[in-house]
Amino acid sequence: MRAVCVIGLGLIGGSVLRAASAAGRPAWGATASSADADAARADGFAVEATADALRRAAAEDALVVIATPLTAVREVLREVAWHAPEAWLTDVVSVKDPVDAEVRSLLPGARYAGGHPMAGVAASGWSAGSAELFRGAAWAVTVEEDTRLDAWREAAALAIDCGAQVVAASAAEHDSAVARISHLPHVFAAVLAAVGADGGALALSLAAGSFRDGTRVAGSEPELVRAMTEGNRVALLDAVDDALGRLGAARGSLASTGGLKSTVDAGHDARAELESLRAGDPERLDVRWDEPEVLERLREHGAAGGRIVALGAETVTVELP
Amino acid sequence: MRAVCVIGLGLIGGSVLRAASAAGRPAWGATASSADADAARADGFAVEATADALRRAAAEDALVVIATPLTAVREVLREVAWHAPEAWLTDVVSVKDPVDAEVRSLLPGARYAGGHPMAGVAASGWSAGSAELFRGAAWAVTVEEDTRLDAWREAAALAIDCGAQVVAASAAEHDSAVARISHLPHVFAAVLAAVGADGGALALSLAAGSFRDGTRVAGSEPELVRAMTEGNRVALLDAVDDALGRLGAARGSLASTGGLKSTVDAGHDARAELESLRAGDPERLDVRWDEPEVLERLREHGAAGGRIVALGAETVTVELP
Repeated sequence: MRAVCVIGLGLIGGSVLRAASAAGRPAWGATASSADADAARADGFAVEATADALRRAAAEDALVVIATPLTAVREVLREVAWHAPEAWLTDVVSVKDPVDAEVRSLLPGARYAGGHPMAGVAASGWSAGSAELFRGAAWAVTVEEDTRLDAWREAAALAIDCGAQVVAASAAEHDSAVARISHLPHVFAAVLAAVGADGGALALSLAAGSFRDGTRVAGSEPELVRAMTEGNRVALLDAVDDALGRLGAARGSLASTGGLKSTVDAGHDARAELESLRAGDPERLDVRWDEPEVLERLREHGAAGGRIVALGAETVTVELP
Repeated sequence: MRAVCVIGLGLIGGSVLRAASAAGRPAWGATASSADADAARADGFAVEATADALRRAAAEDALVVIATPLTAVREVLREVAWHAPEAWLTDVVSVKDPVDAEVRSLLPGARYAGGHPMAGVAASGWSAGSAELFRGAAWAVTVEEDTRLDAWREAAALAIDCGAQVVAASAAEHDSAVARISHLPHVFAAVLAAVGADGGALALSLAAGSFRDGTRVAGSEPELVRAMTEGNRVALLDAVDDALGRLGAARGSLASTGGLKSTVDAGHDARAELESLRAGDPERLDVRWDEPEVLERLREHGAAGGRIVALGAETVTVELP
């Protein structure tokens, strides 16, 4: 099994290191955080200096996983370019276009496919992680026109070994989607929490399930929320504009007719769509690795809501909703 | 113990009937829904025609609890005025000013204080209810200048018997607060769900915790969501305007400087305020029922986040944050 070298041992990187180890892969990590390094070592994991970790990756032909915040990716890629320029490479950063651009600039021709596991908890750092964090979760693996099939398989295999289901998507498709279903929810949670708190102690005293649920992710580390939302600025602006349009329409309707029917119905339908997407028996489909344009085919399945649930030697199994 | 007559046996009314019975009170109900009536009878509860239920309330000097949607309140009050004009009266409708106005118009001089338990689940109807629904929840009981102390005590005692903690507030204060922490969250959930679904199957396939949490209440019955949001139109417009202002500011900041610091920090601080409100050891305070302006005093404690946790013969116990 391909060895794994994880750079960054916070919630996500730390969980990748645990899950890869649990899957039987040789695995080691590096982190700029001495707290995370100490905690990982105390849990029995190998933590090295970044340069040493990358040199070992080069020696063992390992898969390097960049698991730092977006703001540190460039610096890590420079070290990868220096110590392990030929290594298999993926990342678990929450935006994909900016990482793709950095890889193209610093490691042209890299054996790279980007990744993003859709899992998280409000807490952060090594101690918040777990080998089970990705179980059943979606894990995007990016497909661009020039993505190498072998590099893509390495990134996808890590996701599957971590218990996740792979969603093939281009970096741009991914960034546009997560702006709507991950970054906008963080902006909404922050705005909702602030408007609630503006109502004073009485409002917070009366707050129950709907407010707690709607503001939960406002409790996340502000630096991490900013790194992911600000890192996806263009796509997030589109999503915020759509939200402003819908919220403005609700306001107009409430002020003029007093009704919220179209807002409430659209939300109810959308939530029902979410619930039904993975309900019922999915259709299973085997795609051969040697098909022409297999990655493009997998990307099309991803765009239709398909998830890859198994990687065989000759085929890849997709579940379609 | 004061008998209880619940008109409306959906999620909230059905849970009140169960909880009041569990507390040892004689309790019966009525409902316009034959499905809820059948289900309640099958669970061993007494369900009568509305007129019969109210005549029995008059005969037994019971507390009548209006637990219908706001749109049905006027009709029920007409029947109360006809069959039990002297009965103790409260309600559990999610907006308070409109109910207060109807009571003043149809039952001037009623022995009434409004109520609103801050508990709920996405499901609705008798079968979704439980005697434990209100355990530890806030339950607003309204205080106006002319609220009778004896009527207020009856409404508050029901809340305490149901396991809730009482928050004293004027109807206007309540409506303004719940616009922010209950009705705006429903509007936000609907808008967020729709913007996410606009991203297509890929977006919904990648959706994880933040989107699930932020859209959960969009799964509630649209008719109930409309009844409560549209019924609180004026206060909700204020809250939506505040939200539009904050969301627009976030948009402007993201577009100009690329930063979301003030949005994210404000949300994080507000969420921390919510978490800290009921954390730690609360201060306990006994207020005597025979104090001058005792209801006004309790309302001031409610505005400061205080919750009433016990009602004695001579004192009322308030927990302050």
